[in-house]
Amino acid sequence: MRLDIVTCQPDLLVSPFAHSIVKRAQDKGLAEIYVHDLRRFAINKHGQIDDYVFGGGAGMVLRVEPIAACLDGLLAERRYDAVIYMTPDGETLRQPLVNQLSLTENIIILCGHYKGIDERIRQAYITHEISVGDYVLSGGELGAAILTDAIVRLLPGVLGNEESALSDSFQDNLLAPPVYTRPAEWRGQSVPEILLSGNTPQVDIWRHEQALERTRQRRPDLLDE
Amino acid sequence: MRLDIVTCQPDLLVSPFAHSIVKRAQDKGLAEIYVHDLRRFAINKHGQIDDYVFGGGAGMVLRVEPIAACLDGLLAERRYDAVIYMTPDGETLRQPLVNQLSLTENIIILCGHYKGIDERIRQAYITHEISVGDYVLSGGELGAAILTDAIVRLLPGVLGNEESALSDSFQDNLLAPPVYTRPAEWRGQSVPEILLSGNTPQVDIWRHEQALERTRQRRPDLLDE
Repeated sequence: MRLDIVTCQPDLLVSPFAHSIVKRAQDKGLAEIYVHDLRRFAINKHGQIDDYVFGGGAGMVLRVEPIAACLDGLLAERRYDAVIYMTPDGETLRQPLVNQLSLTENIIILCGHYKGIDERIRQAYITHEISVGDYVLSGGELGAAILTDAIVRLLPGVLGNEESALSDSFQDNLLAPPVYTRPAEWRGQSVPEILLSGNTPQVDIWRHEQALERTRQRRPDLLDE
Repeated sequence: MRLDIVTCQPDLLVSPFAHSIVKRAQDKGLAEIYVHDLRRFAINKHGQIDDYVFGGGAGMVLRVEPIAACLDGLLAERRYDAVIYMTPDGETLRQPLVNQLSLTENIIILCGHYKGIDERIRQAYITHEISVGDYVLSGGELGAAILTDAIVRLLPGVLGNEESALSDSFQDNLLAPPVYTRPAEWRGQSVPEILLSGNTPQVDIWRHEQALERTRQRRPDLLDE
């Protein structure tokens, strides 16, 4: 899978893409990630890519020309399954959308900054508008990093154990059950005895009950879906 | 404000904290961010910090001792307003919680990795469990970066223009209206005339209507709150 990230803050994305699962996916040749610096497409020699908002008010807006030039170049080279814009007024990212995007071949992720991008770009190019949550960030870069991590870890062969992603929260509309590891006793607190029993079927039942109970207490909305 | 981030992937957080708004907040002395490497508190000379999950199954769990040692050290030095664990089964992060946390003085953000942390740490230390959204990530680091960015940009003096954060999405339960910048015409698409009129009261009315309309179409749930 190929991901093209378009941003005016390419340096911000260096370390998230150079570590952990995303690094492993690239090392294994399972994901290709390209970060494109919008300033390479600036409208003048001063590196200008943004401008004041029409109608007045605080904040800068990314101009159409640099974004259009970058996207036109990419779209001329290959077919993209999705041109995504990270924005707080987009569709809220949830696991089913991540699963769906992990099945695509080529995607573009465009990051806004400050007040966002000129609306005409959204109308002309964008196929998916995605929000990582109901909060405001300085730019779309961290959202793009989240989307990339969430997608890439689902690609077959990326996780060390194929089973691992299936037992995560949300894949079955249940939160994950509590987990414990050694030591069995710590500061007077023991792990639940069932987990030390070696009785795998009973462990599975306990985990399912715990997952259900935790979901009921914390996220009853997930059970209605 | 002081933020202590506890993680087994400190390198992943280097570039998000070294750019943009978070960098500016630190340069201005408005935010102090310390990233603590859990491996400094490993249980043996091999740097071990995690172990197999009790009861069997895929994935590793962070052990209690390294986390407890790191948190004990911090908690002995100063009073913390919140000890936060980033986890998909936590309270979903939304702007009001960000606003509230931006008023605190010292917070700890603990990042899980792989299957998470031993449940006993959650019971012994954690005051807030927070999820950035209903999707699964490789670890809590990107969640911690998001929470840090969202909080830090609200600290007085961080944004260039005090007005800027108030006109963001979610601060008034409305999505932001569309924004435009120069050029006024691009590939046959003009910006709405009202924005070029110089009639500020009319622009404000238009923006409010657009924000309301966009919220009705995309996120009617926000209007019910």
